[in-house]
Amino acid sequence: MSFFDSRWIDRPDHVAELPGGLPRGFRAASGRAGIKPSGKPDVGLLVCDRVDATSAARFTRSGVLAAPVLLTQERCRLEGLRAVVANSGNANAATGRRGLDAATKMQGAAAVAGGVAAERVAVCSTGVIGVPLDADAIVRALPDVHAELSDGGDAAFTEGISTTDVIEKRAALQVELGGGPVRLSAQAKGAGMISPHFATLLCFVQTDAALDAATCDLLLGATCARSFERISVDGQLSTNDTVVLMASGASGVRVEPETEDELRLGEALDALLRQVAILCVRDGEGAGRVGRIVVRGGQHLHVEAAARAVADSPLVKTALNGGDPNWGRIAQAVGMALPGTAPLPLDIAIEGVPVLSGGAPVDHDVADLEQRVAGREVVYEVGLPGEGADTEVFFSDLGHAYVTLNAEYTT
Amino acid sequence: MSFFDSRWIDRPDHVAELPGGLPRGFRAASGRAGIKPSGKPDVGLLVCDRVDATSAARFTRSGVLAAPVLLTQERCRLEGLRAVVANSGNANAATGRRGLDAATKMQGAAAVAGGVAAERVAVCSTGVIGVPLDADAIVRALPDVHAELSDGGDAAFTEGISTTDVIEKRAALQVELGGGPVRLSAQAKGAGMISPHFATLLCFVQTDAALDAATCDLLLGATCARSFERISVDGQLSTNDTVVLMASGASGVRVEPETEDELRLGEALDALLRQVAILCVRDGEGAGRVGRIVVRGGQHLHVEAAARAVADSPLVKTALNGGDPNWGRIAQAVGMALPGTAPLPLDIAIEGVPVLSGGAPVDHDVADLEQRVAGREVVYEVGLPGEGADTEVFFSDLGHAYVTLNAEYTT
Repeated sequence: MSFFDSRWIDRPDHVAELPGGLPRGFRAASGRAGIKPSGKPDVGLLVCDRVDATSAARFTRSGVLAAPVLLTQERCRLEGLRAVVANSGNANAATGRRGLDAATKMQGAAAVAGGVAAERVAVCSTGVIGVPLDADAIVRALPDVHAELSDGGDAAFTEGISTTDVIEKRAALQVELGGGPVRLSAQAKGAGMISPHFATLLCFVQTDAALDAATCDLLLGATCARSFERISVDGQLSTNDTVVLMASGASGVRVEPETEDELRLGEALDALLRQVAILCVRDGEGAGRVGRIVVRGGQHLHVEAAARAVADSPLVKTALNGGDPNWGRIAQAVGMALPGTAPLPLDIAIEGVPVLSGGAPVDHDVADLEQRVAGREVVYEVGLPGEGADTEVFFSDLGHAYVTLNAEYTT
Repeated sequence: MSFFDSRWIDRPDHVAELPGGLPRGFRAASGRAGIKPSGKPDVGLLVCDRVDATSAARFTRSGVLAAPVLLTQERCRLEGLRAVVANSGNANAATGRRGLDAATKMQGAAAVAGGVAAERVAVCSTGVIGVPLDADAIVRALPDVHAELSDGGDAAFTEGISTTDVIEKRAALQVELGGGPVRLSAQAKGAGMISPHFATLLCFVQTDAALDAATCDLLLGATCARSFERISVDGQLSTNDTVVLMASGASGVRVEPETEDELRLGEALDALLRQVAILCVRDGEGAGRVGRIVVRGGQHLHVEAAARAVADSPLVKTALNGGDPNWGRIAQAVGMALPGTAPLPLDIAIEGVPVLSGGAPVDHDVADLEQRVAGREVVYEVGLPGEGADTEVFFSDLGHAYVTLNAEYTT
């Protein structure tokens, strides 16, 4: 089965899927520090062997940032990262001064193990919020993890950063560029499942193309804007979200700014991150239905607000879960997002079937529509007055599994 | 059992509870128009016999306003309403031009039945969104409803405007003023339960005190701001919310602006509407737990955003449902509300027990705290930097009943 299994994502023709493995110049592994009560792998290490590696990163904008996010933002050379050390099972968030000390210890130990400067090691954590992190356990585990580093370690690394993920979020691609083939890989966890104590989207992307840091930043920014910034599981911004793109240059293929190759690599990265983002949504709360709300209209702020309101509405999400083509809830959510604009001549279509036009209901075959919303992916389209602005958000449904995970599994 | 049964609402000493009945000058009744498939009462009529009655009203600000809200806002003398006609079972929202015609028919028929000018009749609807309303059925039912009008019709009227409400939201009070006793009553439906197709908070308040229209507006605005504007069930703004205060003056007790009596009547109205608001939250999704988030800090916009984020977080709501004192979710929600402010030296207390201080965890007895959050009402307090601003939001939990109602009960 193809990695690109959403009907909304097309694999570009110049992109081929590989069974796995990291691009040249990268090695990864995971190990056990005993952070997870289950005893499963909970420490991941990713190292780039190239001294001139370039990188870019994006982080959550939460006012309550986890210690590793604060540390990585403030003390790392984000344009020249060469390693990532990550743990699962504990977010090291809301842990105060002690949490910063723990993150610093992780960074130092990973720098020693990987043989790179501390300022080139990004630190990430994911798991329970507000519990002190036992950094010493991670430090003790790192030599063994380092000994396992290999260019086939991407699967192990993915396991080491996962928490309650059910769907593996990992891909290895070959991208044909004018200068020759390069490789592109990604390992991600969660977001989807924001479970009792586990929050966080982590995504690590590697390529062996040679990119200057500004190109890394441009490509990552543009593709995050179309992927991780367009998804919602329960509308909850995490304390730990981190996305890192690293380029080793080990393929010898250089991608210059504003070239056809930059565009082709960007297209590959775009499809990759959008598919990963949809997998995060699909992994959301067990039920596995993914909604896509597309809003068009004359004002950017309005289409954005309306799309977010629909994606985050528990009424829309429960209807998606129940296979209920309840367009009244779409209208209600849009109205809430745009106070004081009544009467709005709203258009709504579900799976291509118009149900509301200019604010008045459209006769349609309800049984047929119920059939159409019974699938794994459902698209809703909203038309606001005017033209020129449009946006989309992918969102998960809300079912009993979410409540069970988040209410019944108590501390 | 007292109507004022929340530990957060105190009955003022000058307020006494009555078993029921409307203040002098008011009569109400309900009837059956066949809008509700169950055949239960679905039309309510409330009439004030005094020509010089005064009033004030508040409405949802949704961009998708129901037809009756548009009609009442645009064509009524909101400072001199003398009647309310309301139906349940159909919200007459997202119904276009046809919906406005239906609301106009309801208004005209109620005006004839009640013997008042159409512009003094407020129209309200609650129920399914997007389905044409059979106004003719309501018109046919109104003569019978009118024949039933009585000053003891408040219970019947409440039934006629209810949809999926489990808790009756109705009160009759006597308020001792300097000029003598006056009466104050209220009938409300829902909000709490925003169920498959039923949205809407409706609340009708009557007094036989004599108030000028400006006083009505002042009192209603100030008390709505502390009651219906401080609650959240699922964060979803309705298309139909309407609150109407009417004063008949039939007691002969006049309440002048800026007097002790105005303050005393305001205190009574405040306690009444806050208790009704909490009942709406408690009726929310079946489980019946009510959370109260209090946020203090230096900036009004910050405390408001933080309180809303906590109240609307499905993670906080499921924790409340599960009796889980999960303060990490409070920290996460506050961080989300205040992007770019990290690191926030946040304080959090649950049921008076400090769990986070200046951004660092506080040791506490977890078993004891679990005991404290097992009750019907749970208070969370958040301290942001600075002083001088504070706010609160009352919110419902999120449990399986919500999902069952909203996902499994399909169209």
